[in-house]
Amino acid sequence: MLKITNHDAVRELRMDRPPVNALNPELVTLLTRSVRQAASECDALVLSGRDGLFSAGLDVVELLQLDRRGMTAFWKSYFELLEAVALSPVPVAAAITGHSPAGGAVVCLMCDYRVMNRGEYRIGLNETRVGLIIPPVLHNAMARLTGPRVAEHMLVAGALIDSEEAFRVGLVDALADGSEATVGQAVGWCREMLSLPRHSMLGNRAFARAHFEQEFAGYTDEGVESFVDTWFSDETQQVMQALVAQLKNRS
Amino acid sequence: MLKITNHDAVRELRMDRPPVNALNPELVTLLTRSVRQAASECDALVLSGRDGLFSAGLDVVELLQLDRRGMTAFWKSYFELLEAVALSPVPVAAAITGHSPAGGAVVCLMCDYRVMNRGEYRIGLNETRVGLIIPPVLHNAMARLTGPRVAEHMLVAGALIDSEEAFRVGLVDALADGSEATVGQAVGWCREMLSLPRHSMLGNRAFARAHFEQEFAGYTDEGVESFVDTWFSDETQQVMQALVAQLKNRS
Amino acid sequence: MLKITNHDAVRELRMDRPPVNALNPELVTLLTRSVRQAASECDALVLSGRDGLFSAGLDVVELLQLDRRGMTAFWKSYFELLEAVALSPVPVAAAITGHSPAGGAVVCLMCDYRVMNRGEYRIGLNETRVGLIIPPVLHNAMARLTGPRVAEHMLVAGALIDSEEAFRVGLVDALADGSEATVGQAVGWCREMLSLPRHSMLGNRAFARAHFEQEFAGYTDEGVESFVDTWFSDETQQVMQALVAQLKNRS
Repeated sequence: MLKITNHDAVRELRMDRPPVNALNPELVTLLTRSVRQAASECDALVLSGRDGLFSAGLDVVELLQLDRRGMTAFWKSYFELLEAVALSPVPVAAAITGHSPAGGAVVCLMCDYRVMNRGEYRIGLNETRVGLIIPPVLHNAMARLTGPRVAEHMLVAGALIDSEEAFRVGLVDALADGSEATVGQAVGWCREMLSLPRHSMLGNRAFARAHFEQEFAGYTDEGVESFVDTWFSDETQQVMQALVAQLKNRS
Repeated sequence: MLKITNHDAVRELRMDRPPVNALNPELVTLLTRSVRQAASECDALVLSGRDGLFSAGLDVVELLQLDRRGMTAFWKSYFELLEAVALSPVPVAAAITGHSPAGGAVVCLMCDYRVMNRGEYRIGLNETRVGLIIPPVLHNAMARLTGPRVAEHMLVAGALIDSEEAFRVGLVDALADGSEATVGQAVGWCREMLSLPRHSMLGNRAFARAHFEQEFAGYTDEGVESFVDTWFSDETQQVMQALVAQLKNRS
Repeated sequence: MLKITNHDAVRELRMDRPPVNALNPELVTLLTRSVRQAASECDALVLSGRDGLFSAGLDVVELLQLDRRGMTAFWKSYFELLEAVALSPVPVAAAITGHSPAGGAVVCLMCDYRVMNRGEYRIGLNETRVGLIIPPVLHNAMARLTGPRVAEHMLVAGALIDSEEAFRVGLVDALADGSEATVGQAVGWCREMLSLPRHSMLGNRAFARAHFEQEFAGYTDEGVESFVDTWFSDETQQVMQALVAQLKNRS
């Protein structure tokens, strides 16, 4: 599910769960553990995906089989991953090797830097379209990259945009040609960070990301409950069942 | 004063108070009532104006005849309109059919989405030029669209900019050719919103706009007093009397 | 060290401390006094530098000779300058006549408006590269101009960028061709401000900059201590001694 490669002091965690790198409970737990471990074993981190597909987001097919208790546990576990990335003591770059909707894009928002494979790949938080309501910490993380106006429009519409537009609005920081170049550029960015005086690079980085600490602390059980309520509401279940039926028809 | 048209589930409120759609107490009250009513009678709202002129802003000629008590009442009533638009339970698009200075532009800031008639029309908060001081909620609403740097420059200078520049800096979200196309595009944006799962579209929208609630709550009687003080100050009265004289000479 | 020129109601303070307008304790004190004095003697202020060089930033060679007590006093005095500029009762424009790294760029962040000499001049907060950690008020002042995403990237990397890129990301507001044109355009911007109704221009300006007051108030002795700790840390001293050796070799 996860291929680990060390490019000198930069560790790459490549999601490899065919066919679409869907984030199921197992992959999320594995990612969180690996991100945390990385802090003591390497100096910077790259999160990457398969050629043409970073991650299709949450594994809705598997998650729809969970009961309320199971879904609550999963959602908390997914937030532990997001927090581990956002508050990583070492810099984290996303190598967005291809499509990255919803839960995949959310992981990217938490990184320090985002390089995306130029081409017909799409990225965005399309939660509105699958009946879900985006928690404040994710909404603010988007606004931090694109400004509040663009974030409002994209999040309310559940927009998926292509790589060029993602670059234009600041959702990604750089474009690269092809999957390997995307990883290469993300590794290169990490190396640049590591060439700087370490204590001041990390010190200036810490302040830039300190607000994440408060935001995650502010996402309490009440917020989780509210998300799970929406998940099990008739309206959302209908939208997601229709989505799953569509996915099955397609394959 | 107000032409109401239903485009299916999208209601258009077209200001029609010749010659310049100036916002006097009567039009403001009518708009507020209509905006509130719309929430229970339609699914989305478009605010539009006359061909070539969205609104010239506050009706200074009429307002200059009010005493302190009357002006205080009007200013509160104008803020009720702004709050009704900003916190509307259904999406609101502005179809900026032409010029939109000062009080007209302020209404646009409160909307979810702004389409402007491309061409030699101007928009902006030129309050500085007429001797007025912009309340915090309006200043922040501008900064939310353009970022704080551009907002500071435009608001301090009282700048009126053309539609192309307004689009470039984010004060408007889209341009259309001609007045009817402007309305059409605003209606189209509303329809797009209404094609999404309703509960998640509205849920994600609610968070994006929640800060408006606190901001309006924070604009207390003290803020109103302070605005009215400035209104009746010698300096502001002089500037506005000169403005009115100029308007009369022109016509 | 400081040439004072009155362009009618606009006063220019031109730093002139060869060779590189390095900010030593004496120049900082002189600047602070002059900025404060200006408020009662002129209507707007321009800060400028030498042709091709606004300021090389803090005078590291001189400052490295200070003990902890001396450095603490200097840092407080530098913040008094920054606060005097940020909270100046009259508008302040920066005429960035050339290179403006680190401490020079920081002064520019505090101004109302920044014009930069187009050409091969560089500007930025490269503190990371000299081993220093940027205080919150300066980090936020950058984010206010460029947005938080670009600010994070530039401040963590300690990036110095050329004038065209500085204009593109919003770190400067306008470009001019040549040193004198830069000053001329900064004076022109001040004159534009002074052509507006004074009380509303200053009133709208005051709100746009009110947050600076809280931010400076929030930078307490603890913050100063923390900066001085870093300054005297082995890592930072090494980086700075290497820098000074390099400067000496070059000359």
